[in-house]
Amino acid sequence: MPSPMLKRYLPVLDWGATYDRGAATDDLMAAVIVTIMLIPQSLAYALLAGLPPEVGLYASIAPLLLYGIFGTSRALAVGPVAVVSLMTATAVGQVAAQGTPEYYGAAMALALLSGLMLVAMGVLRLGFLANFLSHPVISGFITASGILIATSQLKHILGVTASGGTLPEMLGGLAAAAGDANLPTLIIGVSAAGFLFWARRSLKALLVARGAGPRLADALAKAGPVAAVAATTLATWGFGLQEAGVAIVGEVPGGLPPIGLPPMDLELWASLAGSALLISVIGFVESVSVAQTLAAKRRQRIAPDQELIGLGTANLGSAFSGGYPVTGGFARSVVNFDAGARTPAAGVMTAVGIAAATLFLTPALHFLPKATLAATIVVAVLSLVDLGALKRTWSYSRSDGAAMAATILLTLLVGVEVGVVAGVAVSIALHLRRTSSPHCAVVGQVPGTEHFRNVDRHNVVTTPDLATLRVDESLWFPNARFLEDRVLNLVAATPALKDLVLMCPAVNGIDASALESLEEINRRLKDAGVTLHLTEVKGPVMDRLKRSHFLDELTGRVFLTQFDALQALRPELAERTLRAPRVETLKGAAAG
Amino acid sequence: MPSPMLKRYLPVLDWGATYDRGAATDDLMAAVIVTIMLIPQSLAYALLAGLPPEVGLYASIAPLLLYGIFGTSRALAVGPVAVVSLMTATAVGQVAAQGTPEYYGAAMALALLSGLMLVAMGVLRLGFLANFLSHPVISGFITASGILIATSQLKHILGVTASGGTLPEMLGGLAAAAGDANLPTLIIGVSAAGFLFWARRSLKALLVARGAGPRLADALAKAGPVAAVAATTLATWGFGLQEAGVAIVGEVPGGLPPIGLPPMDLELWASLAGSALLISVIGFVESVSVAQTLAAKRRQRIAPDQELIGLGTANLGSAFSGGYPVTGGFARSVVNFDAGARTPAAGVMTAVGIAAATLFLTPALHFLPKATLAATIVVAVLSLVDLGALKRTWSYSRSDGAAMAATILLTLLVGVEVGVVAGVAVSIALHLRRTSSPHCAVVGQVPGTEHFRNVDRHNVVTTPDLATLRVDESLWFPNARFLEDRVLNLVAATPALKDLVLMCPAVNGIDASALESLEEINRRLKDAGVTLHLTEVKGPVMDRLKRSHFLDELTGRVFLTQFDALQALRPELAERTLRAPRVETLKGAAAG
Repeated sequence: MPSPMLKRYLPVLDWGATYDRGAATDDLMAAVIVTIMLIPQSLAYALLAGLPPEVGLYASIAPLLLYGIFGTSRALAVGPVAVVSLMTATAVGQVAAQGTPEYYGAAMALALLSGLMLVAMGVLRLGFLANFLSHPVISGFITASGILIATSQLKHILGVTASGGTLPEMLGGLAAAAGDANLPTLIIGVSAAGFLFWARRSLKALLVARGAGPRLADALAKAGPVAAVAATTLATWGFGLQEAGVAIVGEVPGGLPPIGLPPMDLELWASLAGSALLISVIGFVESVSVAQTLAAKRRQRIAPDQELIGLGTANLGSAFSGGYPVTGGFARSVVNFDAGARTPAAGVMTAVGIAAATLFLTPALHFLPKATLAATIVVAVLSLVDLGALKRTWSYSRSDGAAMAATILLTLLVGVEVGVVAGVAVSIALHLRRTSSPHCAVVGQVPGTEHFRNVDRHNVVTTPDLATLRVDESLWFPNARFLEDRVLNLVAATPALKDLVLMCPAVNGIDASALESLEEINRRLKDAGVTLHLTEVKGPVMDRLKRSHFLDELTGRVFLTQFDALQALRPELAERTLRAPRVETLKGAAAG
Repeated sequence: MPSPMLKRYLPVLDWGATYDRGAATDDLMAAVIVTIMLIPQSLAYALLAGLPPEVGLYASIAPLLLYGIFGTSRALAVGPVAVVSLMTATAVGQVAAQGTPEYYGAAMALALLSGLMLVAMGVLRLGFLANFLSHPVISGFITASGILIATSQLKHILGVTASGGTLPEMLGGLAAAAGDANLPTLIIGVSAAGFLFWARRSLKALLVARGAGPRLADALAKAGPVAAVAATTLATWGFGLQEAGVAIVGEVPGGLPPIGLPPMDLELWASLAGSALLISVIGFVESVSVAQTLAAKRRQRIAPDQELIGLGTANLGSAFSGGYPVTGGFARSVVNFDAGARTPAAGVMTAVGIAAATLFLTPALHFLPKATLAATIVVAVLSLVDLGALKRTWSYSRSDGAAMAATILLTLLVGVEVGVVAGVAVSIALHLRRTSSPHCAVVGQVPGTEHFRNVDRHNVVTTPDLATLRVDESLWFPNARFLEDRVLNLVAATPALKDLVLMCPAVNGIDASALESLEEINRRLKDAGVTLHLTEVKGPVMDRLKRSHFLDELTGRVFLTQFDALQALRPELAERTLRAPRVETLKGAAAG
């Protein structure tokens, strides 16, 4: 009987214990479909990362086996993905030249660092850090990356050489080189892309209309990229198109992935560490959100901290078997789920399929045109682009919209790393600025009730010698001083004031800085002849205030409810308002 | 008639318009006392900053004149202060060797940068940024700086040479050099320190007891450092103690401050920029807190954003007249206030007094022992040290205590810049971690009322098929996902559940990420056959939700109050509980 500790770290013990033939059959079916989808994708994403095509295959074997042991999602399909491949190219391109052994070595080292970081975060249970990547920032980043990736592939479709990492650089390079476009390449690229778009949109419906079962039709539609690869490879080989200038993949070494150490170069590690952290966090967030969505559909849960370990070991596996950084892919996981995958064993079977491909399929890839792989990438990533989300987010919240726009613009114009870091910084800064002035409202009693609401929005009962300020936020150092200002302004504006009540239903905490401010407020009100009372102080906050001297110094009292306070301080008014008829109190245009 | 714009930026137009002979007399009296206090202090703080003594005097002339024009505090005494002098020594010591013209130039450049940053922050109204320095961090930093500064002066009192920036380095250096202590120096230093401690504690009371008026007694007590300076200078000159190894100040150039540019070296500026920012912010925070305290005593207000401009121009003035970074001093401002200063004109008069000192007093400073200046510093800074605050803060709040302890330890062991940056980082990180799980409570109706409270702390009425979760915090990206978890766990633990009510009295905002989470919660509850309702949604939040599709998709309703919801959803229960007798509901040990 495995211990709970062991089960936490080895989820395979959990699902493996009840694994049966039914699950195996479902998993196998899903694995076949995912393998067919993954072969062209892994070649294409390796190209996007600036690595030899077989590296994409290597990154689709060991990581899947390890995720199968350590991962908690039943449907997540791990392997090379577009955004992480782009980030790998950016990071590794800063320390080595593409095509050199150093470049490949750095990509492996990046996977190693990313794996170590993910495992460390998992063991330290730091999964909550991913929450600081807000939804608009992730969504903006994915959209911008999709645009960048699609643009970066246009050179392969045109058959020209062009470089550049930002959108303006790439567009400039393409414009300058467009005259040199190679017609056969262009024909292959455009027709492959056209076919793939069509297959994605209409092939399944067509096959169903022709009488195929929906599941078979789906599988065949998913095989579109394989068909495009086969057709263009055959055409290139048959017509000798490489002689006409069509760039081909060329010699792909066959055989299982090489097992070996990535470069153990501390200086290299130091220069890759920042990028590795970004890749880890982005990969984790993407992965977890798709895993959670799929788990919820079957009323399952995933364990985010264990997911860090699952993805971390997957990356370590990639690093030691000639691969590069991997994570859970969105589209591929959805396919895996829809195809019926029930356990991570589907991933293990996929890994076996890819391993078979490395053994037997590589000679067939020699004449595969790069334009076809580029078309595969373009079609895959354009589905990630959702510029409409920017409009929706902006109309809901200006600050979220601003964070999203900053992420998109900086990713496109400066680069992926700057884009995502700036997005996170903007989100946190906007939030901190917002929380530095605490939400407060002067409230009065709603006639006919014991309820108190904002005087600015409701017709409520107040009296000039008693004011109630409802504090709508926890009090801590960035907003403590604003509360002082707010109270002193209120006192200055209300000459008849005798009692000031701070209503604290939303105050979940008062830190040491805010305690200082409250003491200061109490002192200054005392000098001004105003008594300070507190109401609706939460239990834990009250417990803590008792540990300070504040309650001894407080000039007034602490009441359980705001109505209790009014009953004690202005009993006639409280009772009269309570007995008044209950009416709609919302003011003017705010009503509704 | 000056425009309000002009009045905002030139507070002198405000107080200057009503300036009269009475105010001038009071200001003059205060200026005399502050000048007497400032002369030895400015020499001593220049020594602490590693600068020639006359630089301290220069930094006490132009800055005071400019603050008089641009500052808003009536009592703040600007000039060299201990903590900023230590920070200057640290910052400048990284780019130049003490005693070289480059060192002095860098100190001026630091004042220039600090001035530019403060003015820019003032114009951009970024004063709120200072709120991110929490009270425990500031207090810990001041305490640790006081210890560092006092320790750094012991070498002058022992008459040895020792170096080092951290507490262990300094103590090690002192221990190694203690054998070389110079006896005459030690006698001067210890007796000066002893006299100053005594003067600070007991001289005023003694003079009052001997029949002096309290104001005169106070002024005489404040002149203690001047007396120490005069006595030890005379003794050194009379007995030729410099021959016996007593280090003296030596030749001090006379005359008004040299007007000129600080070094315009962009590379130097870049390496000083971080330190300048820290010095600006720390100086501003110290200054504003003393200015606010003093203003409140006379029911005046200060304008923090204009204070940035006042302190900024003061530093620019220092930079262009041979000075170094300045700010408002705590002790000196209190003395200025107590001595009756009514307007910033007192500062202008002080500047005239210091200018007179540069013209006529410098020859008299030749034989002033450095040990006396060191004693002045030690006595001044030890009053800043408050280690008891650490205990008080820790007992009130572990996380505030941790931030304070980190600030103190890192300042002592690594340095002032690391200490304060780490303190701020720890404060913000602890707060972000805390806010990443939103405070929530399941609530029930308090018998006899329309009030709802936490079921864990109160005996309240609930029903198994309706649960109310009160959300006690605004919903935003770092805590949105935790709310999903909390709701799904609640639903899983309550099989009979039909209605889930989210009570939102404390939700001041829902950002785009949290909106996604709410939509997700609504969808998942719908699948589970549970209806989701909202109550007590604030007006502005409701207005914003109306701009999204959430309210169309919401399976349940939105109620004005929680009691309305219960009346509509479970009318019998609501009425029965309302008519029940009202009793004390607090549970067990939590009562009180």
